[in-house]
Amino acid sequence: MNSVRLAQQIQFIIEIDKLKQVIRRSYLIGGKRLENSAEHSWHIAVMAMILAEYATEPVDLLRVIKMLLVHDIVEIDAGDTYVYDEASLVSQAERERLAAERLFGLLPEDQAREFDQLRLEFDARQTPEAKFARALDRLMPLLHNYHSQGKSWQENGIRQAQVLALTGIVADGSDELWQFARSLIEEAVVKGYLSNE
Amino acid sequence: MNSVRLAQQIQFIIEIDKLKQVIRRSYLIGGKRLENSAEHSWHIAVMAMILAEYATEPVDLLRVIKMLLVHDIVEIDAGDTYVYDEASLVSQAERERLAAERLFGLLPEDQAREFDQLRLEFDARQTPEAKFARALDRLMPLLHNYHSQGKSWQENGIRQAQVLALTGIVADGSDELWQFARSLIEEAVVKGYLSNE
Repeated sequence: MNSVRLAQQIQFIIEIDKLKQVIRRSYLIGGKRLENSAEHSWHIAVMAMILAEYATEPVDLLRVIKMLLVHDIVEIDAGDTYVYDEASLVSQAERERLAAERLFGLLPEDQAREFDQLRLEFDARQTPEAKFARALDRLMPLLHNYHSQGKSWQENGIRQAQVLALTGIVADGSDELWQFARSLIEEAVVKGYLSNE
Repeated sequence: MNSVRLAQQIQFIIEIDKLKQVIRRSYLIGGKRLENSAEHSWHIAVMAMILAEYATEPVDLLRVIKMLLVHDIVEIDAGDTYVYDEASLVSQAERERLAAERLFGLLPEDQAREFDQLRLEFDARQTPEAKFARALDRLMPLLHNYHSQGKSWQENGIRQAQVLALTGIVADGSDELWQFARSLIEEAVVKGYLSNE
């Protein structure tokens, strides 16, 4: 056994426990509390298992799930960047690059590289797997917002045009899920969860 | 688009959000709060990505990860069964069977079957994938206990012999991880986190 290698791996596993303390802007369904990025990552990975059949191009499910499990780890250092916070979006790439360097740097080199490639692939949204993973990552908050009566939209003064613009990338990964997302946004407006003004 | 099928799938995705409110007996690393089963499931799925190379028999990583993502969903109805609570262990199988019936029953039939098979495979601990997944599921609480100074062991009056007996199944999935686990248990005793009396 290469005990240095295992020690590095265990250290990384312990370090990423901190993702359980990174709080997102979306509420648990029902609105009881805000969710954290670790439980969100679990939820979205299961979502991928269930909805993979709707991906426009055939996807390697293992790669989709890996991306979804890994994509938020950088938030341990970089924080959760709210998708509607434009100032924060400007600095996001650099903050996340530094975070990846430190966090993935705890791993043995081959695995550090794998994790960083998954993160970059997810961000670049070029491969079928990344397009589909990103579609799910935009669809999930919509479900959460809808099923907590738009609580987070209202708290952050978000309007329909913004949600439509952001959710648009769902179309890139799945036509069917984009149709579904669009009708959910419509319903959210009709029910008064989301403002269209 | 088969909208009935998609509606069932979305309903399931919304329902399993409740796993984020199922509280385990283990603390976050550092001991700040108890962890929930959803964030635990994420953590252990990433652990599988990192430690797969130590599986005694070669494993299909996608299947291992699927099992780990799905294995705790029944706790939404059945609750988290503490591995040292013998009375509760007696009724566990039946409680979880009923939970699986209701929860997976929300899914389209083919997916309900897949999820239940993953759960049963995990429990039966016969395939290389299940042996390895179960090994990780026993190793993780050990890391959590050790890195929160044995807080949960002490609160529940757990002793070394019990931890060794429970953790023994790690050997079934990985010799190297079992060696590691055994030495961590020894160290926990030496440091006074775990009683050997």
